[in-house]
Amino acid sequence: MIEEHIKQIIQKLGADKVLLGAGVKERYEHIWEMDKPLRAKAVVFPLTTQDVSDILTICHEYHQPIAVHGGLTNLTGSTETNADELVICMEKMNVIEEFDLSSRTITLQSGVILEAIHQEVEKENLLFPMSFGAQGSAQIGGVIATNAGGLRVFRYGMTRNLVLGLEVVLADGTIISSMKKIIKDNSGYDLKQLFIGSEGTLGVITKAVLRLHQKPKSRNSAFVAMNDFENVVAFLKFIDEGLAGTLSGYELLWERNYKAMTDPSTNISKPLSYGYKYYVLIESLGSDYEKDQQRLESLLEEALTSELILDAALAQSMQHIELFWRIREDVDILVSQCNNVQNFDISLPVSEIGTYVDTVFKTLNETSEVDNFFAHGHVADGNIHFLISKDNNTIELTDKINTIIYKPLTALGGSVSAEHGIGTHKKPYLKLCRSKEEIQLMQLLKTTMDSRGILNRNKVLNYEN
Amino acid sequence: MIEEHIKQIIQKLGADKVLLGAGVKERYEHIWEMDKPLRAKAVVFPLTTQDVSDILTICHEYHQPIAVHGGLTNLTGSTETNADELVICMEKMNVIEEFDLSSRTITLQSGVILEAIHQEVEKENLLFPMSFGAQGSAQIGGVIATNAGGLRVFRYGMTRNLVLGLEVVLADGTIISSMKKIIKDNSGYDLKQLFIGSEGTLGVITKAVLRLHQKPKSRNSAFVAMNDFENVVAFLKFIDEGLAGTLSGYELLWERNYKAMTDPSTNISKPLSYGYKYYVLIESLGSDYEKDQQRLESLLEEALTSELILDAALAQSMQHIELFWRIREDVDILVSQCNNVQNFDISLPVSEIGTYVDTVFKTLNETSEVDNFFAHGHVADGNIHFLISKDNNTIELTDKINTIIYKPLTALGGSVSAEHGIGTHKKPYLKLCRSKEEIQLMQLLKTTMDSRGILNRNKVLNYEN
Repeated sequence: MIEEHIKQIIQKLGADKVLLGAGVKERYEHIWEMDKPLRAKAVVFPLTTQDVSDILTICHEYHQPIAVHGGLTNLTGSTETNADELVICMEKMNVIEEFDLSSRTITLQSGVILEAIHQEVEKENLLFPMSFGAQGSAQIGGVIATNAGGLRVFRYGMTRNLVLGLEVVLADGTIISSMKKIIKDNSGYDLKQLFIGSEGTLGVITKAVLRLHQKPKSRNSAFVAMNDFENVVAFLKFIDEGLAGTLSGYELLWERNYKAMTDPSTNISKPLSYGYKYYVLIESLGSDYEKDQQRLESLLEEALTSELILDAALAQSMQHIELFWRIREDVDILVSQCNNVQNFDISLPVSEIGTYVDTVFKTLNETSEVDNFFAHGHVADGNIHFLISKDNNTIELTDKINTIIYKPLTALGGSVSAEHGIGTHKKPYLKLCRSKEEIQLMQLLKTTMDSRGILNRNKVLNYEN
Repeated sequence: MIEEHIKQIIQKLGADKVLLGAGVKERYEHIWEMDKPLRAKAVVFPLTTQDVSDILTICHEYHQPIAVHGGLTNLTGSTETNADELVICMEKMNVIEEFDLSSRTITLQSGVILEAIHQEVEKENLLFPMSFGAQGSAQIGGVIATNAGGLRVFRYGMTRNLVLGLEVVLADGTIISSMKKIIKDNSGYDLKQLFIGSEGTLGVITKAVLRLHQKPKSRNSAFVAMNDFENVVAFLKFIDEGLAGTLSGYELLWERNYKAMTDPSTNISKPLSYGYKYYVLIESLGSDYEKDQQRLESLLEEALTSELILDAALAQSMQHIELFWRIREDVDILVSQCNNVQNFDISLPVSEIGTYVDTVFKTLNETSEVDNFFAHGHVADGNIHFLISKDNNTIELTDKINTIIYKPLTALGGSVSAEHGIGTHKKPYLKLCRSKEEIQLMQLLKTTMDSRGILNRNKVLNYEN
């Protein structure tokens, strides 16, 4: 027995765009949990913005809750569904509509995969700087909906800074099209800002105009070591000034990480010896490899002489650079050393990071159910990731570890999520970093813009009936 | 006879914080129109966020419309008032609360003057990159409320990109405090984005946390000339790639401007001869003057050889650099060559600028009431300023010229305001660059967040009773 509104959607879009029953179960809900069949009333595959508008008009009329599925690389449960929800799957809206070399913009539907954007723009020596592990699956709509961060935020900003135009369908089917290819626009409220990072709860992103940068001609990297967190901060300022606009990465690893990543079993040789508390990987993206290398070398020498850093290794080849970055990026090596992993992406003021992580490490050491833990981060952005290995996956232990990590952030002015968002997993902790008044205003916006609560219900905020 | 709610405000804040009657008239409404006395029911001078909250709680209860006065350098009528309105003057909320060198942030009340921020942070070799002509009067609250642009947007972004934390008082007196010193925060909706650029219509900004950058050690500039707009775009890409992150200015002057600015009467000698269609001033902010100068010189030589540019002059001293920048910045010289001036700050996709300006110039030439006109702009941002001299100041002629400039922007995907905002002056033209649905959503947000329409009523949007 097909419900009336599902029939209407089939009629509008065509039966080939709607999966029901067994077809639904064959799709997986989450690439991180591939073992579970998808729970949903139906899965719908729009081709156009008008399709999305038609779907939402009907769902709004019938109070049908929906979830949007992009590349399903979300880490906070934002794409989870229950059997009463309808899934709008964006994978067929994957058209690059315009690549404008003069304006250095690309205009596309929201189902285009991040890596496909990289490939397209690199042909013309341009760069879309948003880059992270899941870029082979993540769709740009999800990247925007979660305001993704990644590795080069310090230089190029979060996704928010790279979106010039956006087209969104509201809960009632209204199309809000703000698709300008311009960097500066103060004509009324900048509506796109509302949707970027709101995790699909205020509208469904259907198209975007992205800002592109010139692709840097050269890349240089170095590892440095220090024992005092004050010097991590001081060296950041020193190298940022010295590299004058070309600094693109300043990634911190605590010794635990550095050792785990360069353990003989990993086949990654260590650029610097063990025994320091902090290891920092720096990257510059410039225009002249030789000159940039000379500049970096002389800055490192200066910092060694003044004891701002205690040791340094300059990558001498592209192979070196890739090896250096594996030490930071190949998180699978850390995961393989863990039992049940719990992930974090907190942020806090840079000055507070040293003491905060020392305290967290101490508490984790004293927690018997925790058998291993790692920390690394985009320290120039104040963003630290923890990987915590624990001996079971009970809700109680998960909560206990969440509390260890999140609770101190309130007093420090930190955030429970720098990058991944709130979804469902971090919802109970939102109040640790946002005030009652802030959450009330979020609720007001949600209720105003989606009066029937059909968009990603119960994600980020509780559904208020 | 003092109204009841004004009495309550006096009681809350103290009589010394409230101007009435003759005291109001002594204050000027707008520094660009210093001849008119201020029209307002009262002027109130809060010292704290709680004061602002108390004022708004009372005004909300009594349906009392208010306007916020910062430095009064707004160009679009956003600070204009009528006799029924109450003015909240922020000048006494001018405290810098914290200057955090590790996090490279400054936390301050919204009445702090932009230039005072520059002076404070430069002491520690840091830079707050927002910079424009009125920085000696403009207050940071107004800078944020209008999402100001200025000269270094290409490298550092608009004001939006420089605000990490914001405290705002809503129409009903609720304090929304999002004052984090962190670059990355995806914990729920990014509420501050709503207030940045909404011209005081959604809340009163009381505090902010600003992001600071390292102050560049060196500055290099050059003037180049070309005849084809295609080469203006191609050279931008070339020099952006070559300068790799240090390009901070790419300012275009049409020959009319360049000639007017370097006329013998101005005592500014011309770096390049006349006879080209376009003159571009470029700036790089780096870390090593000599090396940056060599790099710029060799890039210019390469561009001359390939005929990307037809002529070039490299500034050889700080005196040269200042002279070069006067040619771009000393707008008073242009104003002095005009009768009644009309100003514009439009934006459009970079690729469209050449043809669009040609067409506008042709129409202006054919318009008998127009006796002179100039165009220059932050071309890398797609932002062009026009200064148009006309023989009278009638509403009809103002509208006629507005139409010449604004009308073509709809088809080109441009904006009637890149920088200055909508205020009252551009309100009739908002619909040329924003759709009906967009404006309806703006109205919905306004009505939801300020149900009695007391905040900057009739600015940006029409007041809906």
